[in-house]
Amino acid sequence: MKVVELAGGVGGAKLAEGLAAHVGADLTVVVNTGDDLELHGLSIWPDHDTVAYTLAGVDDEVRGWGLRDETWTVMEGLSALGDTSWFRLGDRDLATHLWRTDRLRTGARPTDVALELGAALRIGSTILPMTDEPVRTEVLTDDGWLEFQEYFVRRHQEPEVREVRFRGIEAARPTPEVLAAIDAADAIVIAPSNPIVSIGPILAVPGMASALAAARERGVPVVAVSGIIGGKALKGPADRMLTSLGHESSALGVARLYAGLATAFVVDAADADATSSIARLGVRPVVADTIMSDDAARARVAGEVLRAAGATVA
Amino acid sequence: MKVVELAGGVGGAKLAEGLAAHVGADLTVVVNTGDDLELHGLSIWPDHDTVAYTLAGVDDEVRGWGLRDETWTVMEGLSALGDTSWFRLGDRDLATHLWRTDRLRTGARPTDVALELGAALRIGSTILPMTDEPVRTEVLTDDGWLEFQEYFVRRHQEPEVREVRFRGIEAARPTPEVLAAIDAADAIVIAPSNPIVSIGPILAVPGMASALAAARERGVPVVAVSGIIGGKALKGPADRMLTSLGHESSALGVARLYAGLATAFVVDAADADATSSIARLGVRPVVADTIMSDDAARARVAGEVLRAAGATVA
Repeated sequence: MKVVELAGGVGGAKLAEGLAAHVGADLTVVVNTGDDLELHGLSIWPDHDTVAYTLAGVDDEVRGWGLRDETWTVMEGLSALGDTSWFRLGDRDLATHLWRTDRLRTGARPTDVALELGAALRIGSTILPMTDEPVRTEVLTDDGWLEFQEYFVRRHQEPEVREVRFRGIEAARPTPEVLAAIDAADAIVIAPSNPIVSIGPILAVPGMASALAAARERGVPVVAVSGIIGGKALKGPADRMLTSLGHESSALGVARLYAGLATAFVVDAADADATSSIARLGVRPVVADTIMSDDAARARVAGEVLRAAGATVA
Repeated sequence: MKVVELAGGVGGAKLAEGLAAHVGADLTVVVNTGDDLELHGLSIWPDHDTVAYTLAGVDDEVRGWGLRDETWTVMEGLSALGDTSWFRLGDRDLATHLWRTDRLRTGARPTDVALELGAALRIGSTILPMTDEPVRTEVLTDDGWLEFQEYFVRRHQEPEVREVRFRGIEAARPTPEVLAAIDAADAIVIAPSNPIVSIGPILAVPGMASALAAARERGVPVVAVSGIIGGKALKGPADRMLTSLGHESSALGVARLYAGLATAFVVDAADADATSSIARLGVRPVVADTIMSDDAARARVAGEVLRAAGATVA
């Protein structure tokens, strides 16, 4: 069963790990690139790397980003030079950024670089940037427009988000690899990532929504998973962001955003009472325990998702 | 006594340390930038950094380059990604390159970046790049033209050097800071660095030779130190390079290269028999023990150099 997962960072990575346990090489993860940034001249891809490190089994689960057993010598050196960087980069992680920046500098497409990195990390599944064109998510706060990582990391997601924009999105296109994966997919999965700033940019790439709509018209199931449980985001600012942007911070609120695209919507058992409202949106509700605390739970949630997509899962 | 030293890497750094012990803040080291390179998108300045780390007292004297107590985590990570870099970069050293590349990227002049780095490393003397324009030393070998570090590091200086060129030199100019330092100098010192590829690029910057000639005409002593002792280079390929380029690999051979510029030439006691030939070039020979094996020796050799420049050294 060929599965395409649209994913942001941590939530997307956990579900990807679960899906990979079921379908392995038949999994293609299309990752948000709107969070990407340039720092110290290096091309840094936070969502991609979280998914890649997780699928490679080298992620730091406690910290929630970066690599396990990381050291921080370069950061200490930068700090001694008076550098006041708020974005932390581990030594081993820096190797990824240096290597990637080098490859991009020689003219390689981001997609090629992602595929090469996947091979180097011996990842059995495929990770694809949503687009090869630069897209940068920015949020409007009471302090003006902030680049996403400025808001997310430097300002600890504290400012209220009044508006979101994806700089460069007009010129972006899904890559041939992304279109081919969607075209070949037996199921599309939308990860329990932030619907506004993780899944939002992917869906906003011109040509992406129509490719997904065409898949749905062909009968391909599109299963979304709620990242909001009991009104709260498990991680990150999705709940406050939904509210400040005029949505409802609830599984139903997220289901409304995906109505018309998703054929099924997986909500946590805590939100079982939302199923009739979700059904009225024309989306089939599926209730499951969606907390992905360990490998077994990830595989179990992924199994529920695949079952919701019509697969027979052991 | 204001001293300007023209310097390459290790030999220049050792003499700079000795000179700094005598004149401290009155020392300005003008460093060769022809060895600079871009690697992983980072701006790497080997000669500058060797001088800077040495003057900051943080250099690795055993290895002869880079920082003491260095770790290599990033390199190991790059290696795991299939990177085959032949230029080794320590973790702490990388902080310097990242910081510098960042500053250059924002439009700072190399000179400003060098001054800022000097301040951050609490170096009492001043280090100036010979020029702010990019100059790249290349050597012609039987395998064609090689970039300098390709020849020096990757090929271990094994190929014979048939010709040397300084790419970009026509568009280079001495910086205002270099010209001001030469203008204010009470003595010019030419380090025992490779006369072809370390001192050569500095002297080849259009406007540099005339600035030095003007200083000499004003009566400023110009003291060069031989990096060749008993026909051999203490370090590096200067001896073979002199020979293959048609010069003599000897203190006298080096003196010939500096005749017309140097007013005095310091040779090692091992080359005392060359003094009359050197004198015939119109250069005053000075015989001294020039081996700079430890801090005391560096200060002693620097004292001899300053004495040759007419200073009263305790």
